[in-house]
Parts: sequence; C-alpha cells; structure tokens
Amino acid sequence: MKICRFNEDKLGIVEGDAVIDVTAALEAMPALRWPLPPGDPLIQHWPLIKARVEALKGSAPRLALADVALKSPITTPSKVIGIARNRRGLSEEKIDIGGGANARQDGDPIQMFIKAPSAIAGPSDGVALRFSDRRSDPEAELSIIIGTPGTDISQDDAMDHVFGYCIGLDMTLRGKESPSSRKSIDSYAPLGPWIVTHDELPDPDNVDTLLEVNGETVQRSNTRDLAFNMREIIAHASSFYTLLPGDVIMVGTPVGFAPVKVGDRVVADFSGIGRMEVVMRAHG
Amino acid sequence: MKICRFNEDKLGIVEGDAVIDVTAALEAMPALRWPLPPGDPLIQHWPLIKARVEALKGSAPRLALADVALKSPITTPSKVIGIARNRRGLSEEKIDIGGGANARQDGDPIQMFIKAPSAIAGPSDGVALRFSDRRSDPEAELSIIIGTPGTDISQDDAMDHVFGYCIGLDMTLRGKESPSSRKSIDSYAPLGPWIVTHDELPDPDNVDTLLEVNGETVQRSNTRDLAFNMREIIAHASSFYTLLPGDVIMVGTPVGFAPVKVGDRVVADFSGIGRMEVVMRAHG
Repeated sequence: MKICRFNEDKLGIVEGDAVIDVTAALEAMPALRWPLPPGDPLIQHWPLIKARVEALKGSAPRLALADVALKSPITTPSKVIGIARNRRGLSEEKIDIGGGANARQDGDPIQMFIKAPSAIAGPSDGVALRFSDRRSDPEAELSIIIGTPGTDISQDDAMDHVFGYCIGLDMTLRGKESPSSRKSIDSYAPLGPWIVTHDELPDPDNVDTLLEVNGETVQRSNTRDLAFNMREIIAHASSFYTLLPGDVIMVGTPVGFAPVKVGDRVVADFSGIGRMEVVMRAHG
Repeated sequence: MKICRFNEDKLGIVEGDAVIDVTAALEAMPALRWPLPPGDPLIQHWPLIKARVEALKGSAPRLALADVALKSPITTPSKVIGIARNRRGLSEEKIDIGGGANARQDGDPIQMFIKAPSAIAGPSDGVALRFSDRRSDPEAELSIIIGTPGTDISQDDAMDHVFGYCIGLDMTLRGKESPSSRKSIDSYAPLGPWIVTHDELPDPDNVDTLLEVNGETVQRSNTRDLAFNMREIIAHASSFYTLLPGDVIMVGTPVGFAPVKVGDRVVADFSGIGRMEVVMRAHG
C-alpha cells in the first residue's frame, strides 16, 4: 500500500496515476489528547485506520495524482535519525563536505546524527534554501519509517519493526557548524512522495536510487552498495534509542554531490517507491 | 506563574509547597487533529488554557508538591536545540569531553546541536543511563521555552518570543559519536521541575545556577557568565530555524563536570525557578 498526505490534511492511497481520498478513514483514529505520546499519530494508530481504509477504498473519490499537492506523510515523529558516511571506500574519494574529515575507514562503526522534526517538508512544499551565499546539497536517501516500537533490537528482529519506506532528501548546508544544526534548517528534510508499506518493498537492501538536478544525473546507485544494511542500521539505532512509530531513519546517501540554487528541480527516483520532485526556492 | 505536569497527565500550577490541580482547564484546548502542526500543544494553546486556569484556580484541588510525580512540562516540541561550549575562556580549561576539540576561542560563533525530542523526560522519570561501561555527565542548563513563533528574529525582539524557562539537564554520553547522537539517548533531556513564565523571570541573564551530585557541588555559576546571552542565542537559532511554540533551547552549561552512575541523585537549583531532583537509574 502506498500512503500519502495531500492538499495539507487529506489522507490518500496511491494506485498508479490516481490518489484515492481516504480521509474519512481518519475517523477511526482515537481522539488525540494532551499529553501526546511521542511519535507520529498516523503510524501509531495505523491498524485502526487501515481497517477503515480497506472498507471504504472501493467507493472513495479518486483524483489524478498529477493534480494533488503531496505533503510529507510523516508530520510529528519523535526523532529523525541520519546515518553519516554510509558508503564503502569513501576514504578514496575527494569530497569536500564542510569539515573535511569525512573519510570513512573500513571497520568504522555506524555514525548517526539527529535532524530536527521541524525540518520535515513535503515534495510540494519545496526546499527553502537558507544562507544564499553558502552551499546546500541534496542527498537522496532511502528512509525507514518505524512501525512497531522497540529498543535494543537484534538484527534478526530488525525488519519486524519497519512500517514502510519513503524517499528522504537529507538537505545539507555545508560549513563548520555541527551536522545536526546544518541539516535541521526548515524544509531541509523533504519526505515523500508517499510511504510504501514494508510488504510492498520486501528487499530494501536492493533498491535502485537515482538523483537528478535539472535533469542531470547526480547520483545513481543501489542500496546494496551502502556500507551498512537496514538490519544493521535499525539494530544500531535501537542500541541508543527507543524507536517509536513514525520515527524516520535516513539511511545515508551514495556518492555524488551537487550544489543547488533557487529554481533548481531535484528529482529522486527509487525503484519500488516512485518519483519525488522537489523545487528549490528562496527562504523568506 | 509556575506551570507543571504531574502524575502523567495532570496540569498543575505551583505555588509555594502546593500544586493546584488545574487539569480541567485543558478543556479549553481545541481538539487535536491529524496532521498535528509541529510544536507543543500546551504552549500553542496556552492563551486559551490560561484564561480557564485563572477562572478555576481559586476553587481547584490543592496537593502537596512533595506528593506528586513531576513530569516534563513540554512533551512534543518540534525541536530541542543545544548550545555547545557557551563558556568564556574555555580554551584555558582542561576538560575531556570525547573528541577533545572543545576549546572555544573568543570570537567563535555560537555553536548549536540538535537533541531528539524523544530524549525528553521529567524529574520523576529519572535518567536511564545507557552504556554502563561509558561515562555520562549531567550538564545543568537554563532552558528557554519558545512561545511566539518566529524566524530571523532580531536581538531586540528576541525576548518577545519567550514563553518561559525551565531547568534542563543536557545529559551527555562521552565518546567519539556525533554530539547530537550521544545527547539524544532516551531520558537524556530531563526538563523541569516546571515552566516559570517569562514575567516571573525578567532577567534570565542573571540566574544563579547550582548543580549537585549526591550533595556535592559540581557546578556553581550564573547565566551572566555565559559567553552568549539569551538575546544572542535566540536571534542566532532563529537565523537557522523557525522557532515554534514549545521549542526548547538549552543555553549551555558552565564549567564543572562529574560522571554519574546508577543511584546518583542529581540536583539542579536555579534562582527564580526552583529545585529539580533527578535520580540516575539503569537502562533496561
């Protein structure tokens, strides 16, 4: 199932070129009360919502996918985790990402950072580039959406905690500040175009990934070429944190960087997920 | 006004040694619906809630402060920002916090990092120390709670965006991982004991701060000795991010570090706010 949010507060199921408007299924969500438990309420309450979706999908309104404004399917996660330098042989690359000490040696442990949930945006929101005199880069990353909460999860059990996947752009302002601060600017975490539930993407360690800027290929890779696979990443993250429903893990980007400027059109196309288009705009 | 959350889902006003149970005032909060806007709903809707609090406070039940379990007054902020190395003359100190490159030179810009909202805990929750073979330190910090949203805020306007203040412990696991990942472990961001609204703390740049571990003084300072003051911090943070209601900015810790272990009793006492006690316990 491909679950999207569209036109701000509508819930949709994507089938081919159509979006089925299943917003009415949200009535199955229990009332949300203060204090809200940490986590994204759509994912927390999905089993109830899903039953309603299935009941009304046949008779629900259908819209053309091209006619809707896609928003981030995840709105208020308890955390967005990024994986840094998840590439093999990076020590042989010459890339300049701010501090310079980006070489990854074989045997290095998984490196995580935290992005602020307020950095999340949807494809139709675009990215508001901040600090026009500095370089920002899009990094296209498979993004795990956690379903079943857990901590100290074993690699064997890791995949049981996955709700689904989407595409994430780990937008990165370059500079000397801490990565978590440079990667948490408003709209620097576009998520979309929808969530593909785990049953529709049985092998997340074999996803073709493509990133284009204005039609030119910047990254062409496959998640099998990441240094750490999904099981390793989930197990490691859960050794630090309780993973909660709706938590996002951006698993790291392949080689290929390109500075973007206002007006640029960034497209990420991942096999088994789909195509996400995000336009760069000016802040303010 | 001193606003607390207690016994999980109760809203209280602290007066002297008493907590006034004003939970009924939450009825003034509009229904919370998906998609939730980013930010903490208590602070987002405080003007409505406050009016109800004032109407019912006189006749509301009063409990002894000593008898309630204090929770974090902020539950689901859109981000928790930390300020690193906000101390003058740090270059002359010898402190070992992980990487070692912690010397701050005069003229260095403000350095921020992001903590995961899921790291928030309340005083009565305690801190669950993770990685028992590694060092974790409590860093006691005045914590700004944002009220009025804003971005690109000038220093002149900065204080107009403050809702209030609480004490934060920026718990820090030492090691080579990124600070944002080491500081975002579950319960590594205790907030409390309550929020003091800005009108009751007119000069946040002159707050005496005390941190004790098992009765021994670890830190004794005043926020006037921070390298950057509240106006500078708010203006700088808002140059990267839109600050939203309930967002937390931990303004940085003074000199004084002490590793803590399971069973240790950490007390932070800040003038104009109060005393927060947090017990260290074992993870898992």
